[in-house]
Amino acid sequence: MTAQTSQSVPHKQMANAIRALSMDAVEAAKSGHPGMPMGMADVATVLYSKFLKFDAADPRWPDRDRFVLSAGHGSMLLYSLLYLTGYPEMTIEQVKNFRQLGSITAGHPEYGHAPGIETTTGPLGQGIATAVGFALGERILNARFGDPIVDHYTYVIAGDGCLMEGISQEAITLAGHLKLGKLIVLFDDNGISIDGPTSLTTSEDQQGRFKAAGWDVQAIDGHDPAAIEAAIAQARKTDTPSLIACKTIIGYGAPKKQGSASTHGSPLGAEEIEGTRAALGWNHPPFEIPEDILTAWRAIGQQGAAARQGWQERVDELGSEKREELERVLAGRLPAGFEQAVEAFKKQTAEQKPKVATRMSSQHVIDALAPVLPELIGGSADLTGSNNTKAKEAAIIKAGDYAGSYIHYGIREHGMAAAMNGLALHGGVIPFGGTFMVFTDYCRPAIRLSALMGLRVIYIMTHDSIGLGEDGPTHQPVEHLAALRAMPNLYVFRPADTVETAECWQIALQSEGTPSVISLTRQGLPTVRTTHTAENLSAKGGYVLAEAEGKRQVTLIATGSEVEIALAARDALKADGIAAAVVSMPCCELFDQQDEAYRKQVLGDGPRIAVEAAIGFGWERYLGEKGCFIGMTGFGASAPAPQLYKHFGITAEAVVAAAKARI
Amino acid sequence: MTAQTSQSVPHKQMANAIRALSMDAVEAAKSGHPGMPMGMADVATVLYSKFLKFDAADPRWPDRDRFVLSAGHGSMLLYSLLYLTGYPEMTIEQVKNFRQLGSITAGHPEYGHAPGIETTTGPLGQGIATAVGFALGERILNARFGDPIVDHYTYVIAGDGCLMEGISQEAITLAGHLKLGKLIVLFDDNGISIDGPTSLTTSEDQQGRFKAAGWDVQAIDGHDPAAIEAAIAQARKTDTPSLIACKTIIGYGAPKKQGSASTHGSPLGAEEIEGTRAALGWNHPPFEIPEDILTAWRAIGQQGAAARQGWQERVDELGSEKREELERVLAGRLPAGFEQAVEAFKKQTAEQKPKVATRMSSQHVIDALAPVLPELIGGSADLTGSNNTKAKEAAIIKAGDYAGSYIHYGIREHGMAAAMNGLALHGGVIPFGGTFMVFTDYCRPAIRLSALMGLRVIYIMTHDSIGLGEDGPTHQPVEHLAALRAMPNLYVFRPADTVETAECWQIALQSEGTPSVISLTRQGLPTVRTTHTAENLSAKGGYVLAEAEGKRQVTLIATGSEVEIALAARDALKADGIAAAVVSMPCCELFDQQDEAYRKQVLGDGPRIAVEAAIGFGWERYLGEKGCFIGMTGFGASAPAPQLYKHFGITAEAVVAAAKARI
Repeated sequence: MTAQTSQSVPHKQMANAIRALSMDAVEAAKSGHPGMPMGMADVATVLYSKFLKFDAADPRWPDRDRFVLSAGHGSMLLYSLLYLTGYPEMTIEQVKNFRQLGSITAGHPEYGHAPGIETTTGPLGQGIATAVGFALGERILNARFGDPIVDHYTYVIAGDGCLMEGISQEAITLAGHLKLGKLIVLFDDNGISIDGPTSLTTSEDQQGRFKAAGWDVQAIDGHDPAAIEAAIAQARKTDTPSLIACKTIIGYGAPKKQGSASTHGSPLGAEEIEGTRAALGWNHPPFEIPEDILTAWRAIGQQGAAARQGWQERVDELGSEKREELERVLAGRLPAGFEQAVEAFKKQTAEQKPKVATRMSSQHVIDALAPVLPELIGGSADLTGSNNTKAKEAAIIKAGDYAGSYIHYGIREHGMAAAMNGLALHGGVIPFGGTFMVFTDYCRPAIRLSALMGLRVIYIMTHDSIGLGEDGPTHQPVEHLAALRAMPNLYVFRPADTVETAECWQIALQSEGTPSVISLTRQGLPTVRTTHTAENLSAKGGYVLAEAEGKRQVTLIATGSEVEIALAARDALKADGIAAAVVSMPCCELFDQQDEAYRKQVLGDGPRIAVEAAIGFGWERYLGEKGCFIGMTGFGASAPAPQLYKHFGITAEAVVAAAKARI
Repeated sequence: MTAQTSQSVPHKQMANAIRALSMDAVEAAKSGHPGMPMGMADVATVLYSKFLKFDAADPRWPDRDRFVLSAGHGSMLLYSLLYLTGYPEMTIEQVKNFRQLGSITAGHPEYGHAPGIETTTGPLGQGIATAVGFALGERILNARFGDPIVDHYTYVIAGDGCLMEGISQEAITLAGHLKLGKLIVLFDDNGISIDGPTSLTTSEDQQGRFKAAGWDVQAIDGHDPAAIEAAIAQARKTDTPSLIACKTIIGYGAPKKQGSASTHGSPLGAEEIEGTRAALGWNHPPFEIPEDILTAWRAIGQQGAAARQGWQERVDELGSEKREELERVLAGRLPAGFEQAVEAFKKQTAEQKPKVATRMSSQHVIDALAPVLPELIGGSADLTGSNNTKAKEAAIIKAGDYAGSYIHYGIREHGMAAAMNGLALHGGVIPFGGTFMVFTDYCRPAIRLSALMGLRVIYIMTHDSIGLGEDGPTHQPVEHLAALRAMPNLYVFRPADTVETAECWQIALQSEGTPSVISLTRQGLPTVRTTHTAENLSAKGGYVLAEAEGKRQVTLIATGSEVEIALAARDALKADGIAAAVVSMPCCELFDQQDEAYRKQVLGDGPRIAVEAAIGFGWERYLGEKGCFIGMTGFGASAPAPQLYKHFGITAEAVVAAAKARI
């Protein structure tokens, strides 16, 4: 059958425009993945022409449908669609410069390169898991602002690779549990992966698996436009998330290579491209789209204009309070009253001087901020009581009731992190979520995407050293601070007490383009910042917490739970007539951004001793040639925390001895 | 009904011994997880008494059944079983010292602490995924040595946490695909996780999900010994892996707390323990097991003695060649001829001076070693042709045919890494597997367990920098070398050419107690080690590859693909009359182990310039205060590799300029 799109250009011609652009761009770049865009061109054409709510002229319209290309290697599918539908920045020159330096058409879709790229994909499984965050964000905002203002779908194209990754299981079971009915996944069921037919590696009943996760499941011929249209229409009606398994031929149209792994990740080659042109009846030069076809596509790009205008009118009709709140949260602006709330909290804390674990400090900060920051959406990967992430008053977000502000993510650290990326990308909310610090390893690929995309996602990572005690080395992070500090564009905070915890939270919330890991203790710590300052001292990354009495002979640098140890060492040294200063370093990345004069003043001229209950990798840059590091040299052990600190020699005595040996 | 075990002690009393030890040990430690051992005591009792093939007197008997406590927080279940069945090292004193410094009874089971702990568990999902490696190792060795020699089951106890983790999906789909019929998972289906009832976080049809993965599935009352026995008997008959969902009550026996999250991760408390004793009819003091019960358990510990002896006789009857080969691979000894094969390869390479990517160098090494190392089991997470991991002659391991030596792991990086841990733990094979370097993030929790357990697992990580080019920042590792170097007990190798690649492979294979990551390029590199040395120069971690002509003024340190750049810089400096040496540093960890004199001699007295196409975090310790690092400062970009090196300033010119500015 031949479905018709607007302007009466046959469906196949519309889809072939995607195929031609994709194979030609990959050929020009001499690298890339033509197979997937050619295979999914029919599905994408139906989705964009019949369903996707968007307006190419205003690509950031907040209530647009989101389209996530989870199979990010097929980036030319997305770039073709953005060019064809007329997104202003996606010119034909950009398509021609696919995968070249400075172009917006990177090998994999990069968020921020161009509007219409809703999220960075490529690392498999991340797209579908991020999409859960989009769909959840939609429901949360819908509960707050109502159907007239927030009411959109999230569509995903995912391949075998995405669905074989473990993270996809966390994503689909979370989506199924929360009944995210407006999440629709189009599975490119082409039976091919890089190594060859998927039968080499999997025998899974993919549809059965989604059914077990509570999804609605359909299976169709992914080259039949009527079937695609009917399936998407049906999927939109369900109150559960939907999978549409689209049986497709990878590299559709390539006469000798279609259906084989050879189309997956390499250019087709001149001869095969010629054959494809013949097979598809596409007799146009590379990168030239006949005017009638381009016109038809451009019309699709404008289909949503009226809907967008209607939406704007409904927004304008909101009461001014509601409208301003909507605009504020969509813009990601913190509310008036935020800074005051932080300062009031700091002041009270400096007075009360609590002796609590910093995870509990964080709980107090959350409780103080939640009332002024309704956009704050908390959660934990099944460690709510341990991570102290749930604000006292927070209601639970659950299937069919999304008015709350707390998510029980389940034992799905990776899925949680990716969902938080999706929430942050969706906008209107600020996500934070907790697990144990050691399980940053489970989240790491998603944390990397937070950093690469520059998202305000806040990771609350508790039980951050051997100080967690008896759970032992499997649960004791020793290399995680270093491994996270190594990542570009990520703030790793390790506050020493409740005041610093509030300051770190403040910076994390104000950092719109940088995600944060806040590393927190299980064990109790004294308040070390006993004098209130309006200034956020942690914002400089490191600062002199306790200056030496007299001319400074040695500088003791510490983070988090070890600041207490450094202070005790300073006292002991003072008793022996040695003038030591203590530097608290809650965030190395911010300290490294300060000017040299400040850094020198803080670090001092004398020997420097750093103390942190973690391995020393990376600390050398602060120590100079006379300095030394006191911390871990290997994995931890299972025992009560005080014994472990002694056992591993992370004590004030050790700091004192090291200082004396160096002055 | 009341099932009887040996000595006619009623089943319930046998199981209650586990419950009592578990709750009392947790109480004494003031921390731990009593709920799971109490809930699964019936299942474990049936498994150990009726099925598990083991001999407590010879706990390392190679053909024993493997028991993996994937829900590692329930460690007291395992310690109780080891004590009760009479494993020599698991004394009652050790049980009393649960979670204390120096005891073998860590908070979570730690491999190496005591025989009977087959693998370290605690990070959820790792146990079940590692068990896939055990079951696969059994089949591989069975194919080589036959039923009389290798024929055992792998049993797993897994909880909701394990099964919610994404890695479990990779594990169960791989096991289902490979039809690992002797893998039996006992699911502790207690409906409780830390945050509360699992209904808070999941609505999954767990049984349906396993069926979709090709598993045999049964569901039983986990407190009915006859049902447990029948189910395990049935599971052993299937030719697919089996799930037995055991409906249990967490904290079974605790009158007020059973069935609730409060039994999960905290001691029951004195009052509740008293109530439990009454409810269970267990009127014995803490840590005292009545003699009849202990005798019955000890008899179970000896049940396997005859089977073990029969096995030993069958081994003795093998021809001497076969027997010696069996003993060799089980002991993990490399064969005679191994060193010669490496040396011959190195010699030939130094003569032929190939210009190839180091991933291709690694391919050549694998091809050279595979004939002498039949225990080498390769694989890739769907990147076989990119990782160059498949030896030319290697046959594929597949369902029903395990005689090969190569595994298509599918797009399951994390599952692959954990399965390799299981293969290494099983013994008799040496696993290696590949993916892209950037996806070490996906494997990281399992790599950490390789390191923590000290396993000879070899990670072949290709496409190791911006040198991969057009795939862009999502695929370009920049922080991964640092993040891996931060991990204790892990060798991170980055060879510069084919000779170094062979040397790094040699060290990795000889390192029985340390896993290795071998970081390899996508792009071609010249041979820099053009003079053959019998000595493995890479074994010192770093060495002077090209000494300065005349008195050394500056030292250029590089790894992998940047050694070529350093050599070019040396030439340019020489032309300007500046004497520079080039140090190749294929393994920082090994270099750091050398004595100070050697390290000083290699690094030299002058300024040091390090060049690596990655971020500089961690390099400061080699640079001194005058040194500098040339590399990345943030994420990469999508473009052809040569343009990227120029764009990011990682060039010989930059090295020359830095050197000139410093001398």
